[in-house]
Amino acid sequence: MGKPLLLDQGSGGLASHRLVNDLFFRHLQNPILARMDDAALVRPKGPLAVSTDSFTVDPIFFPGGDIGSLCVHGTVNDVAMLGAKPLYLTCGFILEEGFDLDDLERIVISMATAAKKARVKVIAGDTKVVPRGAADKIFVNTTGIGQMLVSPGPSGHRARPGDAVIVSGSLGDHGLTVLSMRQGLSFEAPVKSDCASLNGLTQKLIRELGSSVHVLRDPTRGGLATTINEIAQQSKVGVVLEESSLVVKPVVAAGCEVLGLDPLYLANEGKLICIVPKRHAAKALTIMHRDPLGREAQIVGRVTAENPGKVALRTGLGGHRLLGMLEGEQLPRIC
Amino acid sequence: MGKPLLLDQGSGGLASHRLVNDLFFRHLQNPILARMDDAALVRPKGPLAVSTDSFTVDPIFFPGGDIGSLCVHGTVNDVAMLGAKPLYLTCGFILEEGFDLDDLERIVISMATAAKKARVKVIAGDTKVVPRGAADKIFVNTTGIGQMLVSPGPSGHRARPGDAVIVSGSLGDHGLTVLSMRQGLSFEAPVKSDCASLNGLTQKLIRELGSSVHVLRDPTRGGLATTINEIAQQSKVGVVLEESSLVVKPVVAAGCEVLGLDPLYLANEGKLICIVPKRHAAKALTIMHRDPLGREAQIVGRVTAENPGKVALRTGLGGHRLLGMLEGEQLPRIC
Repeated sequence: MGKPLLLDQGSGGLASHRLVNDLFFRHLQNPILARMDDAALVRPKGPLAVSTDSFTVDPIFFPGGDIGSLCVHGTVNDVAMLGAKPLYLTCGFILEEGFDLDDLERIVISMATAAKKARVKVIAGDTKVVPRGAADKIFVNTTGIGQMLVSPGPSGHRARPGDAVIVSGSLGDHGLTVLSMRQGLSFEAPVKSDCASLNGLTQKLIRELGSSVHVLRDPTRGGLATTINEIAQQSKVGVVLEESSLVVKPVVAAGCEVLGLDPLYLANEGKLICIVPKRHAAKALTIMHRDPLGREAQIVGRVTAENPGKVALRTGLGGHRLLGMLEGEQLPRIC
Repeated sequence: MGKPLLLDQGSGGLASHRLVNDLFFRHLQNPILARMDDAALVRPKGPLAVSTDSFTVDPIFFPGGDIGSLCVHGTVNDVAMLGAKPLYLTCGFILEEGFDLDDLERIVISMATAAKKARVKVIAGDTKVVPRGAADKIFVNTTGIGQMLVSPGPSGHRARPGDAVIVSGSLGDHGLTVLSMRQGLSFEAPVKSDCASLNGLTQKLIRELGSSVHVLRDPTRGGLATTINEIAQQSKVGVVLEESSLVVKPVVAAGCEVLGLDPLYLANEGKLICIVPKRHAAKALTIMHRDPLGREAQIVGRVTAENPGKVALRTGLGGHRLLGMLEGEQLPRIC
């Protein structure tokens, strides 16, 4: 246990300055952040992708990551999915009075490590401390800015009939990990979050295939099923997924069975959906298989002109069932 | 009372989509936001200023504004203070299950109105709903992106000995308003928050005076005293403020006396500090006096080579006292 965070460490006054200097600047330092003006000054080139995400995950530490690495990966991925190279992150902390300062440092170090690995700089930050009980430990917002690498870039609107749907790996790992921790469950095999920054992988795809990458999306909250539905609606196309091609780790499948959850609706934090014309699918797979984060990539379905806005799952027995968006809430505070 | 917010409205699934479409898109709509990809695509020109801020103000509605207008003004101002024209905002909501949906709509409308007035677009958003008790009603993060109008732009590092220190108006209005609401106090005269977007005013200053605007800062948390101390430290100069030139409304002065607060340490949300060479001070004042938000602008002090990093207040009696940064926390959740 470290010292508890005090209310005046978010006051904007002397104690705030000490916290910012001793903790945030020490671990996240770079010349832009170090200027300490009200805003950061940057000089990116060309069109930009901008994304924002707030993280409220509970528990804040979990196998495979923590709220610090998650908030970097999540926003880096959202920017990367637009076909951009993530450059900058801002981070806003809302902290509960009494929060353990050692835990905070562990989280900031984890952010710094994830940011370094993803080659993004944290250029601006903000810290608020609220009285005990007004927030649960720590919430983080990250906003990401990236430089577009291609035009037109991948977009949920660009899926076309005949396109192949590729998924980069196994489904449901993050969601099941967080939920099983929260329920105090343990399984025979260890389960851990897949959370990772995918910008290395997306940049390779864009570099080799350019605008032929029609869609990139990371299936986070609501899982694969919800994200594919969003794409089907935005592009006004149908999607047929092959159940037999979807990878779910045995431990995740077993956990889902115990808990009555469907892995297709569980959040992933290190997986992507890539939709390309069928003739480019083999090349996309080759590129993905060479990257550690795409080693298990498979073609999992195809885009159709029929049933626009709908997603069907072809089951092992050859039947079709309609796969809707997530209804209700399986899992609050998953990210 | 409206309907209560449900947990599944933050799930990323169907209920989330309805909330986003019915509420956020309806009021904040613009072509960039409407694409609904993971990130927004923008094409700003030249160097950019980027700033982030989280808002946890309590109460969320107060005379002169609410958390919705405040989160726009606050971030617009931080971007403007770097000498940039604010263009885009992202917003991340953290909402407590059960939060009144009518209140949420009122806040979103207030954001939209403030954004329109400040001529900024909300280009990306995120909504998380946490279970009852895990957050207090609503927290909002806004991140702002603006186009730099001048190089070198104003910065806390550019105050020079001999410069004049100008403040745009009265001090402590926002802080005292929020605190008196929270304490259930009422005063003879009405007191209201000064919260406002200052980018119109800063753009006029930059247009006329260019790089001669050495410093622009908005004295929010920690008040004028803390912000001037930051500038003195960053620029390695001394500052002498004239107590007689600082404007504090009688109702704010009276409220501070009752509550034992110093208005120089109370947050402002619609005031700015402008530091320019002495020879440009008259012109800066003329520009400010023409703007409704700068009508009460005054020269309040000067920058000195002596006592670098220190701020002195010359009192009405001619004595000097050292004005330090805010110590401790006068007022949590002020913004």
